[in-house]
Amino acid sequence: MEEIQRPATAILLMHCPDSPGILATLTGFINVNGGNIVYLDQHVDRLKNVFFMRIEWDLKNFVIPKEKIDDYFSTLYAFKYNIQYRIYFNDYIPRMALFVSKMSHCMYDILARYTAGEWKVAIPVIVSNHPDMEVVAKRFGIDFRYFPITKETKEEQEKLELGLLEEYKIDFIVLARYMQVVSESFIKHFPNRIINIHHSFLPAFVGAKPYHAAFERGVKLIGATSHYVTTELDAGPIIEQDIARVSHKDTVETLIRKGKDLEKIVLSRAVEKHIDRKILVFENKTIIFN
Amino acid sequence: MEEIQRPATAILLMHCPDSPGILATLTGFINVNGGNIVYLDQHVDRLKNVFFMRIEWDLKNFVIPKEKIDDYFSTLYAFKYNIQYRIYFNDYIPRMALFVSKMSHCMYDILARYTAGEWKVAIPVIVSNHPDMEVVAKRFGIDFRYFPITKETKEEQEKLELGLLEEYKIDFIVLARYMQVVSESFIKHFPNRIINIHHSFLPAFVGAKPYHAAFERGVKLIGATSHYVTTELDAGPIIEQDIARVSHKDTVETLIRKGKDLEKIVLSRAVEKHIDRKILVFENKTIIFN
Amino acid sequence: MEEIQRPATAILLMHCPDSPGILATLTGFINVNGGNIVYLDQHVDRLKNVFFMRIEWDLKNFVIPKEKIDDYFSTLYAFKYNIQYRIYFNDYIPRMALFVSKMSHCMYDILARYTAGEWKVAIPVIVSNHPDMEVVAKRFGIDFRYFPITKETKEEQEKLELGLLEEYKIDFIVLARYMQVVSESFIKHFPNRIINIHHSFLPAFVGAKPYHAAFERGVKLIGATSHYVTTELDAGPIIEQDIARVSHKDTVETLIRKGKDLEKIVLSRAVEKHIDRKILVFENKTIIFN
Amino acid sequence: MEEIQRPATAILLMHCPDSPGILATLTGFINVNGGNIVYLDQHVDRLKNVFFMRIEWDLKNFVIPKEKIDDYFSTLYAFKYNIQYRIYFNDYIPRMALFVSKMSHCMYDILARYTAGEWKVAIPVIVSNHPDMEVVAKRFGIDFRYFPITKETKEEQEKLELGLLEEYKIDFIVLARYMQVVSESFIKHFPNRIINIHHSFLPAFVGAKPYHAAFERGVKLIGATSHYVTTELDAGPIIEQDIARVSHKDTVETLIRKGKDLEKIVLSRAVEKHIDRKILVFENKTIIFN
Repeated sequence: MEEIQRPATAILLMHCPDSPGILATLTGFINVNGGNIVYLDQHVDRLKNVFFMRIEWDLKNFVIPKEKIDDYFSTLYAFKYNIQYRIYFNDYIPRMALFVSKMSHCMYDILARYTAGEWKVAIPVIVSNHPDMEVVAKRFGIDFRYFPITKETKEEQEKLELGLLEEYKIDFIVLARYMQVVSESFIKHFPNRIINIHHSFLPAFVGAKPYHAAFERGVKLIGATSHYVTTELDAGPIIEQDIARVSHKDTVETLIRKGKDLEKIVLSRAVEKHIDRKILVFENKTIIFN
Repeated sequence: MEEIQRPATAILLMHCPDSPGILATLTGFINVNGGNIVYLDQHVDRLKNVFFMRIEWDLKNFVIPKEKIDDYFSTLYAFKYNIQYRIYFNDYIPRMALFVSKMSHCMYDILARYTAGEWKVAIPVIVSNHPDMEVVAKRFGIDFRYFPITKETKEEQEKLELGLLEEYKIDFIVLARYMQVVSESFIKHFPNRIINIHHSFLPAFVGAKPYHAAFERGVKLIGATSHYVTTELDAGPIIEQDIARVSHKDTVETLIRKGKDLEKIVLSRAVEKHIDRKILVFENKTIIFN
Repeated sequence: MEEIQRPATAILLMHCPDSPGILATLTGFINVNGGNIVYLDQHVDRLKNVFFMRIEWDLKNFVIPKEKIDDYFSTLYAFKYNIQYRIYFNDYIPRMALFVSKMSHCMYDILARYTAGEWKVAIPVIVSNHPDMEVVAKRFGIDFRYFPITKETKEEQEKLELGLLEEYKIDFIVLARYMQVVSESFIKHFPNRIINIHHSFLPAFVGAKPYHAAFERGVKLIGATSHYVTTELDAGPIIEQDIARVSHKDTVETLIRKGKDLEKIVLSRAVEKHIDRKILVFENKTIIFN
Repeated sequence: MEEIQRPATAILLMHCPDSPGILATLTGFINVNGGNIVYLDQHVDRLKNVFFMRIEWDLKNFVIPKEKIDDYFSTLYAFKYNIQYRIYFNDYIPRMALFVSKMSHCMYDILARYTAGEWKVAIPVIVSNHPDMEVVAKRFGIDFRYFPITKETKEEQEKLELGLLEEYKIDFIVLARYMQVVSESFIKHFPNRIINIHHSFLPAFVGAKPYHAAFERGVKLIGATSHYVTTELDAGPIIEQDIARVSHKDTVETLIRKGKDLEKIVLSRAVEKHIDRKILVFENKTIIFN
């Protein structure tokens, strides 16, 4: 994994009720303290009157020490303007756990990007409910953990998984065609931090076997959707979607084959946005900063 | 409308149980009788073992008289191979009735193509359940008929419409954002000959207000679907679909605006395929010959 | 054309050398004077160190009178920060001249949007070097002026055209498949205010007959490009591009047919962005605000 | 690599001057000899009067022995109808050599498909002009051969490469971002059997650094093109192209990043079509059977 040298920056992801001057106030805070803004994208939802922003600034001459930024921001602005926010630092490398089952296409796509240094992420562990993908994990020298899951063992196994994730200090989980519904209690440990790929353009074809359903309906497009996992199946905030054109000549098998390429790209785009701290969730929808 | 000079051709659209030699037999029939094949597209559904074909041949040296082709084909092959078929002649100009309500975008797109001679079709009449579009019909010098429809008058009004369509010798109907569900008895007069545009990528967002539903769900793509109308709402054979990318910045209004461009193109592609006799319906799906 | 009621707003399109605090300063200027920002999109080109912004604010409670805004802004900021800018007001309806030749598809698409009220624009006159499209102009009740152009008459005819455009107080020109190169002296009267549609994905297939060239090369995609006209042929700032998939089955004729739909949409998207004051030109490229 | 059980079939790829009855004749040949046609796609180029066909039939009951099919076909039809053709058998697994330089994205994409059994191909050797990718080759257990090339050593090194390819009985070569022009004499050994990926939508941006050129021109789309290598640089028959949308916010770096995903998919689609024997080259263009 090649090393990327970047100046240390802070990233603020936030939303609050919109008010005149909020943008001037917050950019002023950064400027006045010596921060050089290197990225700013903001959006106002005029219907709900909410102000969203992602702002990133160079810390080199920023007079507030890194570990105090949150305190200052909270004290000065968060309460006053009712701001919901998270502050990230670009020199922290987020830690991903990859969950897989029997298919390798998304897994390879993610591991290829990872090992080529495309993403600033660490992937210390791969978790699976089937042993099949251990051979792929080994190619990349990543710890592979097998948790067979039945209705009876699910609760216990998920607890073991959670323990493992804690041990590895995992920040977020990617379900790369992980063919097992994750329980509500598990999800609660990773709110908006589990990314799934569903092999249809949601909300069409929720649930199992969407390619079969697409074939039955005779659609002319198939799709894939990456989303954060919530307790309602396939109903979490959508991060990215894309489609491919199909025809009457396609069979379920060719739909699956074409769909794999979609799944790879749609999942990877979502993971990249997540790693880059460019996604904000608000009322079950995503704001994707550019 | 500019005149297009084309040699007279016959078009056979057909399907039958697949059997070895069916293709050789049918192309042989045309060749042996002096027909020069100018188009052939065939497809075999190996799952259902059905052979589909669209074949078009020049009639100049074809020894069977035009009006006898159907008889010959029926006698020689249709019964023997259990062929379902239709024979068309390219010198017959199909007659379309355009149904509109209050929006002009699809209507203009269709009438612009029609008056520019893009399509070999006649549009002698425009039908509407609202008077608003009469002004547009007048720009193009096309008869506009207003049939206001209420729950009480629907049956009677549809009968009047059917009378008008018969009078105008209408072959097929295009619902260009016609905002009124057509009754089962009406549909039966035009099986697979009523084309509708639905403003979502079906089967997502069936029914009313799909852009509002898409906005609520937070999708990253919106779509449009053209299909033949069947008695089940928005569930008929899909002819064409396409999508446009949207983001968190879109409002219902901008979705509607972006969607209009989709609707136009997706409806027009379907109408063109229909006019060109390139669509075959089989078990609620379309085979679209290229 | 339906009437759209909108609050009066001012729109500032600008760029200047980037400097810390420029955003806070300019948004502060608007806030402090009672302007409610309803739109803000900014972009920093870090390579060239240029700050670009489109900002729009409600004038209702803005204390600076409309006609003084430019003076104030110029005095307070433009010189100090070396800002290049234009201020627009959304209650002014820009005036477009439509230039056409022999093809109607882009013309209809634009006039349909115009008459449906999709765009806040006035189109008082259509100019052509061929008489063919007069019939279409008449359908829409728009003044049609025919200027036949030969090598010998070009200079004189363009002067007459310029006189007409002045008379009609034309702000910008749309070349809707206008098949005549516009002279350098003509272009100088409308810098970055003449929008052309070229029927290829530039820079491929510059000049005449791009569909023929695309066919010869055997490409699998055809494209269309809308751009501002500069004195170098087909080399002006690109506003929008799109493509359509083609295959070995396509002929030059079907490429032209498929291309028409591309041209319509790509030209209309550019015109819409221009009308909405969302385009800024910098060093022969466009910044397209969203 | 999972094993795929398929019935043995023969595949005929051919073209000849079009003549009435050619299709009936050739399908008749297969039927009469007990072959069951499982695939047929044909195309007539009416401009050049050429008939193209890909036909595949089950060999189970075919009375002509496999090794005699070519003789029979040649004797009975090829001379008579002036047919250019190749016969393939689906139980032969084509052998690919992968050429790489310093970038891993296309290489991983291909090797992931290969090891997952997506493609019926053998990849016994990876060739490179740089040592960097040996680590990736090792992950997949594939022989990696390093041939450093300078202007002086090129001729000699290419001879060594050709020897290696012969030793490994290589059928075709894939240049997966191989950053070295292949010589004319090398190409002659693999006519229409070297697939390259060029990182632009050809014919735009031929040659080196197309992303830099695209950035300079300010395009709104970037593309990738896979093609067969001919002696003229980037001018060989195009197999597949695709594009991605970009904006003024993109830098050369983000163009390169977005482009990588395009390159992967566009190259892999071409390789798949080649493996499936679905490409025919005629006069520097490809016919891609579906």
